[in-house]
Amino acid sequence: MSASYEAMWEKLNLDLPAHEGLLQVLGKFYGDIYLTQEGRLRGMEYLDFVLSEVHGLRIQELQEAKAQGRKIIGTFCVFVPEEITLAADAVQVGLCAGAEIGKDAAEKILPRNTCALIKSFVGFKLSRLCPYIESCDLVVGETTCDGKKKAYEIFEDYAPVYVMEVPQMKQACDLDLWKAEIGRFREKIEAVTGKKISAARLKEAIRLLNERRRVLQRLNRLRTAVPTPISGRDVLLINQISFYDDPARFTAKIGELCDELEARIENQEGVAGNGIPRLMLSGCPMAVPNWKLPYIIESSGAVVVGEESCIGTRNTRDLVDESGETLEEMLEAIAHRYMQIDCACFTPNRERLEHIVDMARDLRVDGVIHYGLNFCQPYAIEAFKVGQGLEAAGIPMLSIETDYSMEDVEQLKTRVEAFLEMVR
Amino acid sequence: MSASYEAMWEKLNLDLPAHEGLLQVLGKFYGDIYLTQEGRLRGMEYLDFVLSEVHGLRIQELQEAKAQGRKIIGTFCVFVPEEITLAADAVQVGLCAGAEIGKDAAEKILPRNTCALIKSFVGFKLSRLCPYIESCDLVVGETTCDGKKKAYEIFEDYAPVYVMEVPQMKQACDLDLWKAEIGRFREKIEAVTGKKISAARLKEAIRLLNERRRVLQRLNRLRTAVPTPISGRDVLLINQISFYDDPARFTAKIGELCDELEARIENQEGVAGNGIPRLMLSGCPMAVPNWKLPYIIESSGAVVVGEESCIGTRNTRDLVDESGETLEEMLEAIAHRYMQIDCACFTPNRERLEHIVDMARDLRVDGVIHYGLNFCQPYAIEAFKVGQGLEAAGIPMLSIETDYSMEDVEQLKTRVEAFLEMVR
Repeated sequence: MSASYEAMWEKLNLDLPAHEGLLQVLGKFYGDIYLTQEGRLRGMEYLDFVLSEVHGLRIQELQEAKAQGRKIIGTFCVFVPEEITLAADAVQVGLCAGAEIGKDAAEKILPRNTCALIKSFVGFKLSRLCPYIESCDLVVGETTCDGKKKAYEIFEDYAPVYVMEVPQMKQACDLDLWKAEIGRFREKIEAVTGKKISAARLKEAIRLLNERRRVLQRLNRLRTAVPTPISGRDVLLINQISFYDDPARFTAKIGELCDELEARIENQEGVAGNGIPRLMLSGCPMAVPNWKLPYIIESSGAVVVGEESCIGTRNTRDLVDESGETLEEMLEAIAHRYMQIDCACFTPNRERLEHIVDMARDLRVDGVIHYGLNFCQPYAIEAFKVGQGLEAAGIPMLSIETDYSMEDVEQLKTRVEAFLEMVR
Repeated sequence: MSASYEAMWEKLNLDLPAHEGLLQVLGKFYGDIYLTQEGRLRGMEYLDFVLSEVHGLRIQELQEAKAQGRKIIGTFCVFVPEEITLAADAVQVGLCAGAEIGKDAAEKILPRNTCALIKSFVGFKLSRLCPYIESCDLVVGETTCDGKKKAYEIFEDYAPVYVMEVPQMKQACDLDLWKAEIGRFREKIEAVTGKKISAARLKEAIRLLNERRRVLQRLNRLRTAVPTPISGRDVLLINQISFYDDPARFTAKIGELCDELEARIENQEGVAGNGIPRLMLSGCPMAVPNWKLPYIIESSGAVVVGEESCIGTRNTRDLVDESGETLEEMLEAIAHRYMQIDCACFTPNRERLEHIVDMARDLRVDGVIHYGLNFCQPYAIEAFKVGQGLEAAGIPMLSIETDYSMEDVEQLKTRVEAFLEMVR
């Protein structure tokens, strides 16, 4: 896709030779991990196309949106309320954070003991390799972990950063603080876009994003079927692309894919045999192109049937109440919806432990792999309680901590295989 | 001191043989680091005595207080408002967290990549070696960092834990949240002690603790003198003991020590020569018996003249406004005072950068050593901005990350000596 987009990338001030190298590696990696799968759904062709154009056509669409006066808002976190962005006619996109790129540059301004996701987004920026961040009018950070909270203070010297405060408990005073933060975010977005958010626009944005959540809920429900009709890799990709793609188009396409899945389930067709171990992933998010662990699992004779993660059910479980009519009612509904998120940033966070056990049972899994990024303290520490909860429910758990490097692939494969021996 | 206290320690369910070993190591360590100093102040005899009785006489006092119906409240953080504890006739004490004890036990329930302070307090508890925590009716945690926030969720299975939420910004909504948290803490303390906090008692507690802050402010001001009249080790010890000792007694004793310092300054006497490099420590707290870095610095031909740390100026800089008369006015004043703390848990935290430069100038330092505990992300990441601020002010900085082990002593000594060569 390079030739036709080169002028655009140059205008975005990307490091063209390095970017070309990145696309080649990404293409090869995607081919190996995704296109080698057998019995894939026809509906995945759309996802293959979107991924192949993730730095091309989608970026071109963003430039066209900008040319029409729309603003681009980048985020790394499911707490940033996209309803508000959309209602101000802006486009919200996830930013590049899933590859070990620019690590050396990032480690010049951040400690080495920082999680891979944070070093990655800083590295992408410093290396001029993420066309999304270069398209952004605003990058919205948050205070969900010490690493991001403090990294944004440095990152704001490189990009236009705005930080939302996410509270750490779920008391009445926390909801008040979060409502104030939603209000402050609305003002910021109105200032950046120069557009007033109307009740009608906000209502439509709530509806549109709930539809996207509903179709992903539907997708996840279909995965309770035995044999599972879709690979974990493919669903991870769908979840990843939900952060980049146009919401209406994405929802329609995933709806079609779900129709295809239903037909498959009716015919008792699956991507893997009946007896193959069914695993669930739980923990830290996996951003594009961080497909390492699902690939290891699914090339070891198991299949992933659930992702308890921000790039997974944590982002789709809860809907915004659609009954509000006034702006105030809707903003209140938005505040409530986002405060239901069971992020490890909260203390206590018992809901997450309950969700994991419920999900594992619904999906009829044989085991859970808890996935932590090295130095992600909230999920690493919470893994202990997750393990206790799963043990009490009689569900085996393997806890893995890793980063984006490929150095530990063989070691991870050995551990996953040993776990599969145990759960089989 | 062992013989006379053994019955008490047994009653507190300490691991007696291991505790005896700990006291011996601590005594030897203290002797080497503290008692070898030349030209010490007479006033330090009191501190030597308190430290020698830190698990003895002071614990006996706590037991006597308990026998009189007073409650013991333990903390690890300067955000826990001692005014409220004191006003309910309870005793607030810092808990053991400065030694590599019970590390193996702690690492069974916490990730290895957790900071030494957190592993230490968990380790002390699991190993039954901290008579303070065993005396506690309540341990008050907080949400200042991911590590502590999430560790308390596990720790509450071992001790009676209550967690205060410290906000992450300093906006109006954060002050509101913090006021609500102060109110919730007051209710909790009233419930635990069974005593109502009166305006008169709270006013007296505010006055008493302000007096303690004032005497420590006076001590720090006296250290601007050249040559410095007191070693950094000794002032660190004074700050450490301020968390354990009876506030009124401590304030009186440090006042006497300051009188002695003033006489010394008048005679131009110092603990170190005129030309010796003056350094300031900045960053993470150093809990008893974590004297490693000050000892390395001061045995390398330099002297420490300031501690920008929670066990240092961060805990003493700000006073509570004493003009309030009603409970509401005083609680409001307390909320304001604690929100001035320049902990790295806040974003942004520009006040700290300004305080560091101001302090370095006031103390006429030749350089700053930024001290981070391994895996303490807030201070590790903020060190980058601290370095920028100091560089702009023309003040050299050395950034050190370490833990409580002694393995890196030689390596740290080499780095400190190289830094001293540079600043000399």
